[in-house]
Amino acid sequence: MRLYSMPSSGNSYKVRLLLSLLGRDVQTVDVEYQTQALDSAKAEGHMPFGKAPVLELDDGRLLPESNAILCWLGEGTDFIPADPFHRAEMLSWMFWEQNQHEGVVAVRAALQYYPHRRAQATPERMAALLESGHALLQIMDDHLSSREWLVGGAVSLADICLYGYTHTAGERGGFDMARFPAVNGWLARVAALPGYKGLTA
Amino acid sequence: MRLYSMPSSGNSYKVRLLLSLLGRDVQTVDVEYQTQALDSAKAEGHMPFGKAPVLELDDGRLLPESNAILCWLGEGTDFIPADPFHRAEMLSWMFWEQNQHEGVVAVRAALQYYPHRRAQATPERMAALLESGHALLQIMDDHLSSREWLVGGAVSLADICLYGYTHTAGERGGFDMARFPAVNGWLARVAALPGYKGLTA
Repeated sequence: MRLYSMPSSGNSYKVRLLLSLLGRDVQTVDVEYQTQALDSAKAEGHMPFGKAPVLELDDGRLLPESNAILCWLGEGTDFIPADPFHRAEMLSWMFWEQNQHEGVVAVRAALQYYPHRRAQATPERMAALLESGHALLQIMDDHLSSREWLVGGAVSLADICLYGYTHTAGERGGFDMARFPAVNGWLARVAALPGYKGLTA
Repeated sequence: MRLYSMPSSGNSYKVRLLLSLLGRDVQTVDVEYQTQALDSAKAEGHMPFGKAPVLELDDGRLLPESNAILCWLGEGTDFIPADPFHRAEMLSWMFWEQNQHEGVVAVRAALQYYPHRRAQATPERMAALLESGHALLQIMDDHLSSREWLVGGAVSLADICLYGYTHTAGERGGFDMARFPAVNGWLARVAALPGYKGLTA
């Protein structure tokens, strides 16, 4: 297997984090924004949806979308709950992450972090993203205030998924994380998992 | 089971369509935009993420997110492929739908369709959404040009999911669907499935 991974991206990091937690090692091809490697990966047909991460199996089959890759790699492991309703709840959080959280929390961070996107970071847009992001983080905080993990009683793919962009929401995104004590406790629990690896590790 | 469903929304429609294809009937609570019913459903705690659809089980447990509901209802049916890699590919399309397709194809339609959103439909935004949407629909068209269904050789949740907003992309969204013959053929195949029900049926 080969992972096309963007080093700076939370979506790619989720996959690297799960692989590390599972003690698995795969060949990684770094495809950072505005590099020849990314252009080549696209031109050579390795990115069906035009973005990273993509997992390439040994027989050449391609699997795009970070959360689908998590589900594929997580199959048969404790990161997918045995209970069918818990599995559905796990997917709820993961779809919410792609539909709501990523488009606000990750986008605000990207607008500040990547030089080529800064022209789009108008004061109005940044203010709107700040307010929306705080509301989304509040949903997580309310949920986590009475439990240790997002779903059921154990860590699942939902936690790995949401950790990706939430753990840099303060530093990169400028969100006021002091408002979210339950989220902060949960972030610390993920970072304490055996095999944990940081974004830049 | 009870489904909190927004009659005008493709996300809610996906769930109603799958239920109809499965020959299942559940109590439906209509929660249209700017109605008291929607405000009440939120105020009474039936919408953990603040949006429809939400499936409420008989014991009161709540499952938000259209695609997670599809996975829950599809469990054990032919709409989820038996092959593990096909299941992962199905999820790829469903995450892509929530992360890319919905935020462009559905949003452009919503900006035209809902009176309370028309103020946001600036010419620049509509032009950008038109261009992005055509690129996304082209990804579907290229993929479907050599196969009947999005994943494997049979209809799956991926098709039901993407059908939700694609089938109104022309009429509501203003996209030029004549460019996408393979998508049009696929839309017709979904509409011919036994038990099919339209958005307003």
